[in-house]
Amino acid sequence: MASKHGFKKSPRDLLVVGQDFQLDRVESSAAPGFSGKKRDAEQLLADRARRLGVLQEQLFAESKFGAEKSVLLVLQAMDTAGKGGIVSHVVGSVDPQGVQLHAFKAPTDEEKSHDFLWRIQKEVPRHGMLGVFDRSHYEDVLIHRVHGWADEAELTRRYAAINDFEAGLNEAGTKIVKVMLQISPETQKERLSARLADPIKHWKYSPGDLTERAFWPQYMEAYQKAFEQTSTETAPWYVVPADKKWYARLAVQELLIDAFESMKLDWPKGDFDLATEKKRLAAS
Amino acid sequence: MASKHGFKKSPRDLLVVGQDFQLDRVESSAAPGFSGKKRDAEQLLADRARRLGVLQEQLFAESKFGAEKSVLLVLQAMDTAGKGGIVSHVVGSVDPQGVQLHAFKAPTDEEKSHDFLWRIQKEVPRHGMLGVFDRSHYEDVLIHRVHGWADEAELTRRYAAINDFEAGLNEAGTKIVKVMLQISPETQKERLSARLADPIKHWKYSPGDLTERAFWPQYMEAYQKAFEQTSTETAPWYVVPADKKWYARLAVQELLIDAFESMKLDWPKGDFDLATEKKRLAAS
Repeated sequence: MASKHGFKKSPRDLLVVGQDFQLDRVESSAAPGFSGKKRDAEQLLADRARRLGVLQEQLFAESKFGAEKSVLLVLQAMDTAGKGGIVSHVVGSVDPQGVQLHAFKAPTDEEKSHDFLWRIQKEVPRHGMLGVFDRSHYEDVLIHRVHGWADEAELTRRYAAINDFEAGLNEAGTKIVKVMLQISPETQKERLSARLADPIKHWKYSPGDLTERAFWPQYMEAYQKAFEQTSTETAPWYVVPADKKWYARLAVQELLIDAFESMKLDWPKGDFDLATEKKRLAAS
Repeated sequence: MASKHGFKKSPRDLLVVGQDFQLDRVESSAAPGFSGKKRDAEQLLADRARRLGVLQEQLFAESKFGAEKSVLLVLQAMDTAGKGGIVSHVVGSVDPQGVQLHAFKAPTDEEKSHDFLWRIQKEVPRHGMLGVFDRSHYEDVLIHRVHGWADEAELTRRYAAINDFEAGLNEAGTKIVKVMLQISPETQKERLSARLADPIKHWKYSPGDLTERAFWPQYMEAYQKAFEQTSTETAPWYVVPADKKWYARLAVQELLIDAFESMKLDWPKGDFDLATEKKRLAAS
């Protein structure tokens, strides 16, 4: 392994959705750029968690002195692809005081009475925070496209609205990292089967999972379209092979570290006179 | 060590604020009920984190099937007592998807235009969640008493309002755990001094910390009054000696585990026909 992050080449370069990207050419069982084994990856994940933790604390610290910066991780994937694992194992290593997580469910009646971005805007991370969207505004161009809940003209409007929204966020200081975890339909079948086989996991299973599974090709098409329309320079998509959970976690961790590092963070100086405060404290 | 939790007697019994409790008799450097060393405590903290994680997941799972239960940890303390460490090291071991953390700062103008409980009620945990209040409605009977921002009649009203509010929460399924971390003024001095000595920690220091430090006796009196008025059977206070950070973390973790266990949680059964779903999956 060539570098401190254990990858031969940065996941940012390897996994980014650029021009001519084809989702159906992604090998979901691969581990691009990483030649180690599962055990190496787990060790590295634990080591790099400290780096991510320090960066997050710097972001938080800077915000206390007026910096208007944040990071937003957007997670999208088919069921069982491992969004939850990313949240618990990657985001979970960061101090909860610096994390703002929101899981978007089916919209409420109130949310439906607004434009689709209304409920999203309310949940963007505060300055200093790592925001995490478990599902997001992309549902409105994914499941909506798959089931025909929005027509082509409306979808076109939404792609543009998303790009404007994300460009605005970026301008205002939010670094956006959009991740799609890619598994194969066979992997999903195995994971659903494992849920059914273990009574402790039954609560995670819903018959609706199979209903959506039947639309797999349509979902892949909807993702492909979304990538073509919304993978921009300021808010690019990354497609992360996720049949190997340990690879997906390591890659997303590295994408986050990379995003934080691009912000040139540092420990802020205090806004007090050190000698004075030392004297005051001694006298107290 | 006599039991699975490593304490000779449950922290619930040792640390609870009962009748005749005197804050000034608490030995903040003690480790009640625990005879191990720091290293033992750290190992135990890591081990017991798994138990806490399972319990939290059960609470979350039950909520998916209609259970209306949650846990609320209320943290109060003087500056540097270690609230942040409890959040990062105890709460931080729990899956972020099951945690709802809110840090209460000085109220906004909008919040001040309502009764003091208005902003609190908005942040109570959803069903299935471990809610954490970093500071809370108790500020309104602590700093407000210390600085005379509320008179005796108003404070009396607030104690009663708090008891009604917490009794209602409890009735509605929220298990409340109220923790005050107790350090000595000398420990605070050392910790503030350490912050001033390390430029990386300067951002955590504010000259205002010393201003409040000067009111130490008044704060202790305000805590004593709050305990007398609001340590109830359904929402008792626990005073946790916190000069030893490792002890405070272990004790709070155990208080949480105890609270979860009192709720008799279990893995919910799925609401589907297993044979049918296995067939559907096989055919998919």
